[in-house]
Amino acid sequence: MAEKRVYFFGNGKAEGDASMKNLLGGKGANLAEMTSIGVPVPAGFTIATNVCKEYYENKGKWPAGLRKEVDTNVKKLEKAMGLKFGDPKKPLLVSVRSGAAVSMPGMMDTVLNLGLNDEVVEGIIEKTDNPRFAYDIYRRFIDMFGDVVMGCHHEKFEKALHTAKQKAGVKNDNELSADQLKAVVEDYKKIYKKEVKQNFPQDPFDQLTKSIDAVFGSWNTPRAAKYRELNNITGLLGTAVNVQAMVFGNMGEDCATGVCFTRNPSTGKKEFYGEFLRNAQGEDVVAGIRTPEPLKNLKKEMPPAYKELTTIMSRLEKHYKDMQDIEFTVQEDKLYLLQTRNGKRTAAAAIKIATDMVREKLIPQKEAVTRVTPEQLDHLLHPHFDAKAKRDVIATGLPASPGAAVGQVVFDADTAEEWAKKGKDVILVRIETSPEDIGGMAVAKGILTARGGMTSHAAVVARGMGKCCVAGVDAVEINYKTKKFTCGKLTVKQGDFVSLDGSTGQLMKGQVPTVEPELSGDFGKFMKICDKVRKLGVRTNADTPEDAKRAREFGAEGIGLCRTEHMFFEGKRIWPVRQMILAAEDYAAMLTRLDEALTKKEETEIKKEYKDTKKQFEGALKKLLPYQRKDFEGIFKAMAPKPVTVRLLDPPLHEFLPQDKASQSEMAKQLKVKPSRVKAEVEKLHEFNPMLGHRGVRLAVTYPAIYRMQARAIIEAALNVKKQKKTVKPEIMIPLIGSVDELKLVKEEVVDEIKQVFKEKGTRISYLVGTMIEIPRAALTADEVAEEAQFFSFGTNDLTQMAMGFSRDDAGKFLAEYVNKGIYAVDPFQALDQNGVGKLVEMGVKLGRETRKTLKCGICGEHGGEPSSIDFCHRVGLDYVSCSPFRVPIARLAAAQAVVKNG
Amino acid sequence: MAEKRVYFFGNGKAEGDASMKNLLGGKGANLAEMTSIGVPVPAGFTIATNVCKEYYENKGKWPAGLRKEVDTNVKKLEKAMGLKFGDPKKPLLVSVRSGAAVSMPGMMDTVLNLGLNDEVVEGIIEKTDNPRFAYDIYRRFIDMFGDVVMGCHHEKFEKALHTAKQKAGVKNDNELSADQLKAVVEDYKKIYKKEVKQNFPQDPFDQLTKSIDAVFGSWNTPRAAKYRELNNITGLLGTAVNVQAMVFGNMGEDCATGVCFTRNPSTGKKEFYGEFLRNAQGEDVVAGIRTPEPLKNLKKEMPPAYKELTTIMSRLEKHYKDMQDIEFTVQEDKLYLLQTRNGKRTAAAAIKIATDMVREKLIPQKEAVTRVTPEQLDHLLHPHFDAKAKRDVIATGLPASPGAAVGQVVFDADTAEEWAKKGKDVILVRIETSPEDIGGMAVAKGILTARGGMTSHAAVVARGMGKCCVAGVDAVEINYKTKKFTCGKLTVKQGDFVSLDGSTGQLMKGQVPTVEPELSGDFGKFMKICDKVRKLGVRTNADTPEDAKRAREFGAEGIGLCRTEHMFFEGKRIWPVRQMILAAEDYAAMLTRLDEALTKKEETEIKKEYKDTKKQFEGALKKLLPYQRKDFEGIFKAMAPKPVTVRLLDPPLHEFLPQDKASQSEMAKQLKVKPSRVKAEVEKLHEFNPMLGHRGVRLAVTYPAIYRMQARAIIEAALNVKKQKKTVKPEIMIPLIGSVDELKLVKEEVVDEIKQVFKEKGTRISYLVGTMIEIPRAALTADEVAEEAQFFSFGTNDLTQMAMGFSRDDAGKFLAEYVNKGIYAVDPFQALDQNGVGKLVEMGVKLGRETRKTLKCGICGEHGGEPSSIDFCHRVGLDYVSCSPFRVPIARLAAAQAVVKNG
Repeated sequence: MAEKRVYFFGNGKAEGDASMKNLLGGKGANLAEMTSIGVPVPAGFTIATNVCKEYYENKGKWPAGLRKEVDTNVKKLEKAMGLKFGDPKKPLLVSVRSGAAVSMPGMMDTVLNLGLNDEVVEGIIEKTDNPRFAYDIYRRFIDMFGDVVMGCHHEKFEKALHTAKQKAGVKNDNELSADQLKAVVEDYKKIYKKEVKQNFPQDPFDQLTKSIDAVFGSWNTPRAAKYRELNNITGLLGTAVNVQAMVFGNMGEDCATGVCFTRNPSTGKKEFYGEFLRNAQGEDVVAGIRTPEPLKNLKKEMPPAYKELTTIMSRLEKHYKDMQDIEFTVQEDKLYLLQTRNGKRTAAAAIKIATDMVREKLIPQKEAVTRVTPEQLDHLLHPHFDAKAKRDVIATGLPASPGAAVGQVVFDADTAEEWAKKGKDVILVRIETSPEDIGGMAVAKGILTARGGMTSHAAVVARGMGKCCVAGVDAVEINYKTKKFTCGKLTVKQGDFVSLDGSTGQLMKGQVPTVEPELSGDFGKFMKICDKVRKLGVRTNADTPEDAKRAREFGAEGIGLCRTEHMFFEGKRIWPVRQMILAAEDYAAMLTRLDEALTKKEETEIKKEYKDTKKQFEGALKKLLPYQRKDFEGIFKAMAPKPVTVRLLDPPLHEFLPQDKASQSEMAKQLKVKPSRVKAEVEKLHEFNPMLGHRGVRLAVTYPAIYRMQARAIIEAALNVKKQKKTVKPEIMIPLIGSVDELKLVKEEVVDEIKQVFKEKGTRISYLVGTMIEIPRAALTADEVAEEAQFFSFGTNDLTQMAMGFSRDDAGKFLAEYVNKGIYAVDPFQALDQNGVGKLVEMGVKLGRETRKTLKCGICGEHGGEPSSIDFCHRVGLDYVSCSPFRVPIARLAAAQAVVKNG
Repeated sequence: MAEKRVYFFGNGKAEGDASMKNLLGGKGANLAEMTSIGVPVPAGFTIATNVCKEYYENKGKWPAGLRKEVDTNVKKLEKAMGLKFGDPKKPLLVSVRSGAAVSMPGMMDTVLNLGLNDEVVEGIIEKTDNPRFAYDIYRRFIDMFGDVVMGCHHEKFEKALHTAKQKAGVKNDNELSADQLKAVVEDYKKIYKKEVKQNFPQDPFDQLTKSIDAVFGSWNTPRAAKYRELNNITGLLGTAVNVQAMVFGNMGEDCATGVCFTRNPSTGKKEFYGEFLRNAQGEDVVAGIRTPEPLKNLKKEMPPAYKELTTIMSRLEKHYKDMQDIEFTVQEDKLYLLQTRNGKRTAAAAIKIATDMVREKLIPQKEAVTRVTPEQLDHLLHPHFDAKAKRDVIATGLPASPGAAVGQVVFDADTAEEWAKKGKDVILVRIETSPEDIGGMAVAKGILTARGGMTSHAAVVARGMGKCCVAGVDAVEINYKTKKFTCGKLTVKQGDFVSLDGSTGQLMKGQVPTVEPELSGDFGKFMKICDKVRKLGVRTNADTPEDAKRAREFGAEGIGLCRTEHMFFEGKRIWPVRQMILAAEDYAAMLTRLDEALTKKEETEIKKEYKDTKKQFEGALKKLLPYQRKDFEGIFKAMAPKPVTVRLLDPPLHEFLPQDKASQSEMAKQLKVKPSRVKAEVEKLHEFNPMLGHRGVRLAVTYPAIYRMQARAIIEAALNVKKQKKTVKPEIMIPLIGSVDELKLVKEEVVDEIKQVFKEKGTRISYLVGTMIEIPRAALTADEVAEEAQFFSFGTNDLTQMAMGFSRDDAGKFLAEYVNKGIYAVDPFQALDQNGVGKLVEMGVKLGRETRKTLKCGICGEHGGEPSSIDFCHRVGLDYVSCSPFRVPIARLAAAQAVVKNG
């Protein structure tokens, strides 16, 4: 074969470049690229991947001509470095590494310091006057070569080292003296001989040949083959072999080693940043025995090296168009770069760098949005614990809502409110929360529940409030009576301080110091870049004017989900609600009888018979109307002129009734009925599977008057706000639809009520009526449903529950196991299950738009704020996502990233 | 227009035939057909449907030439009957009827006796010597003509008749004397004049013309037009007009009237069957004043008429290829057939006739299977109430399982068993049933529940047992303490007799007499015909050898669903089950820790720590193994050599724990733990939505040992039965799969255990491992699931619950309303929702077979025994349906009918 097999790089020239990944492997191509753009990397050469293929075709022998090419390249390398293989005066040491086109675990580990032998080691001692160093790298080389290349287990060497340390009475490797290390070298050589049945090779060329063979051999280890099979990696020729000169920063005072960044990785500021140690190796920086100097000192101490380094840093950043994290070594005043890569950075730095680089015209906007991760943004938006603080973790639950909270434990919402009023910071601890706890949750710094998953009531509400929440801490056993919780042997009383980390799910003892988030001007600039890139709209889930306002500040373009449940709970409103529920059954009976009545007379008689029932039920709704109207006015004002999607009442009626005896007695007293009546009602309304029970639109099928009242409140509110010269775009959303006929029936009631309002007020306003798609059947028959729905909003929480058969309130107990065992890659309540639930969403959009070409489709489940789900929403062509206020920036970013990823 | 407009029929000849429905309407074509095959129908003529069209195009006037054609045909009719319009001596009376190509309500009613006038009525009196008859048909004619043709309301005539009866002091029409009727005629004529502003027309031609006009006019009444619009009836020309001679069986002793069947409609026996009355009209037979004579008497009394009738009966049956129900009249010794149609028959007769007709080669097998309805078959298989018995209905619930049951009310399973032992018939009355009630249900004659729907526990179990059940009787309020139930003001105590009709859902007071089912040899023959026609296999859902045996007798070709839950409940087995549950949490913790253990030593330590837990959990399973093995042996023997699909444990563990305090104490005593421990366990296992909770395969993900034990029991049992030279085909079914990885994981455990059994026993047996498709996600990803599943069984109960978001335990409260309001045509738990849930089934089959071409697909939900669902299963290409034993014959029939319907 006449084909070129070995590619040299060094002294500013390379025979390859970044585009030749297939032939040179990832590492080889990268080294060539760096060299060719003028970065002084230690010289070396790469044996191409096709040689590996030849090697196998040749039954494990080097193809003819390879030996010669390798020898030629070793010569070139010697010349480039001014060193010589096996020459004790100027010894060339090299590293040998494998490197396929795709990064692949299971391939051969690196061999360092190849070229050392008994002679060379003496030469190095002479040159460095550091026998400890020389023997140490020699014994390491024997270990690596023996283990990686010849299959003599590292453990055996380790054991000998251990014995030497015991003998010397020391604990750490670096406490061994030069002589002791020398003895270790001898021991190692003996071990090598015993295991390999050969003397340790003294000829560097022999060492090199054996190492190259080992790299070729590692391509077909069972582990590497299995990895390729599992990851569907096919079409690769083999692995390349990279041979590169070693350089040392610890050969004298004209040597140094360091790490530097092209910008400040903490703040993002455009400045050279880093640190170095003179006459030291990389490990010394890490070990922390000596304190490194700041990079600027290099300017004084090694001016030419510093100058070259900063020039290269600028060049590298321009070349790679990102902040670089660079390892460098100065050997005998000559600068070498060992590695450059995109640098890790803090969230704030990420935002500043991305924004600055757009301004500097270094990267386009589309690139900038990929430079900040949603997690970084999330971190930025919530208080977090001081990274240096000590954490005394008691237990870990689910990281249900991010943030850091510190406060005193309370066990009920009333105490929470009471203590908060006195200025105390409280952590509300509940077995689980219910809508009755909302007040307490609102004032608490953080919420802890013993049960419930990532989409439990506590989790959803907390995220909505942007409040820290740790849910489902199984280990915690709560006793409401004694106002204590135990966790193993630990007991925590009411009033004790605890700290909650909503990003990790940790529950900690005492007060862990926190850091408050600070949003810089760069944050706003960066978000504007995201907005320019993204195609998906971003709305918010908000139930109050406060939430709506906060979401606006975070960039929400409307409300995608305004729940109306809390409007039934708040303050005194609960009484008419409960009054309505007590009358509900009789009221439904009346409606049925009126439906069946044949004559006007019969109707009149029925109405007479149910006069009190009607008064009680409809009277309750009349009392609720002004409250609701006022709520909507507030929300419409806060969100004007953006659209507001209001979901009509969703939960089952029993959620509005008290479950404990005391509250039931109070209800009886308030509504002037017997306590037994209340108890009986609670029992009657009990459901085995409330999730699949009498709720959502099903309530309106039975009690159309409830949705009528809500429709009236919405439209009256909209008209009132319109009078104040504000634009209102109400979108009425009917939940839990399973069939078009169900929607049609209830929509007719709603529209009829709205027409009445228009007539009464003598004015009108545009509005939409649409539906949630959250029951699988609705998605399956979306072509039919779209006949009546003016918009779809995918309620992926419930859709996930039903499509996967998981109750989110119960699945917490076993879902973690499902994720651990790899049945589902992630909790489907956190990230949309694209393969299953996603199919229904896709089908829903497709079928819906077959009927109604311009059908507006959005998502309002918890997934609307989760990046991978947002990417999915972009791909299936949704118009918008809706998420809790604190997730809005994350959604804006994720939506922009989806454009970059998918075009 | 030269086109023919009027078509004559009479004297064995007709100008039309059955194929000319479009032109002559359904009725006209039928009369022509009957005439042309030699049936002596009274002669007449039909004005074709296109004339109606011409009439409208002509702005409501007769097209030129029609008058002449009608006159010509009246002449022909006079000649054929030997009578004359308006001739008092030999008066021709006719009927006028509308009749479009499609039967259509809202069109004109019949006018009878047209041709009567003041003169003709006298002639008839003379001829019949029956003035009562003559005046009666005259007054009826005036009423009909006035009402139907001239728009003078029937009510007005009725009022006059009422006054006449009051005056005469009589109650019934037929008590009026001839003179009184004559006076009524005069009154009627006055009313006619007053309302119509004309004298009642005396000219028969005038009467005829007006009637024909009225028929044309009725084509475009708003009601008829609306009906056509709603039913998408388009392309019709108009209605035809049928004018036919009247004949009378009450004109003298040479007259008679009767009804006859070509076979016995009660028994199906091939014999002429019927009855007649001499000198009488049809109404006399119905009125029951005179007792009709059996048909055979006609042979003696009117030999020629009898001979002609029987000849015609044979001819008609051959022609129409079905048992005919014939109305005939003999007028002056001449036989006329007024009508022939396919006769209604009892279930037993339907089966015998269909079977006989196949044997007689009158109809092919495919036709025979359409001659019996599934409802008839169902009726035949269950005891039913004597149709003549009086029913005192207290309340009505859902007809959950057919049959008739009479017995004494008991309120708990223990009392049921106790009383049944003493030989008492009991009706088990429960708010709802649970698996703990099984024993009581098994001995009860019938089951009544106050809550729950068609697929509630009670309903499903009762259908499985072929036992009468009425579910969800809302009106009943049960008090277990006082052992009473109330229903409105009625109180029923323990021991009181009630009767239950499982086919209508009625609850009745006292003991209503019942009739036991009897299956004839024809039943077996008919079912064999069904088997030859059908393509779908029919299996049964059976959990016991008894059920399996019964199902075999009913023709089941295997078990499609053998639930294993009851094997955990029966007798003493519940104790090890509960022992296992108490150890479960710790056992799961042990498994997790073992999974995470890094060294052997660590594993050993963990095992030591959990020694007791392991012993308790695995020991319990060891105790259960022999029970289960024995159960399976019995079932395999009963079903050999047919396949048996065993579903591994499905319900959540909490279903095996007692809920009430007393039982909890008993459990604590039995298992030697504190009662508080039991109570805590019950609370810990409580789920908000158990339907979507920790059950099915999810249990096996947490506790693989449970399914391992079951797999072992199945295979050991199969090997034992095989030793007895019986063929066993075990199919192991894993429930509640949502993802292929879940199935894969658990299948590996099951297969591993089976391999161990094979190794231990030194022998093996073929088996399959498949899955239920009951979670929407499994259907949506069926292509993936089929990689691991060797068969699919659609569990459409749960699939319906999840796809539609209905909990079957709770939906009873509102689902009836959904059906009433037309949102769903039928309860989706009774008949598969083809449009929604069906889409998932179809997708599941299609995707599954894309991966595994020969994938066996069945259905084991309750829908497997419901005819419209079976038709769907046939259409989507399932291999079999599986249903409760008593539904097996119905499924065999429905599967055959599906072939006929869909090819």
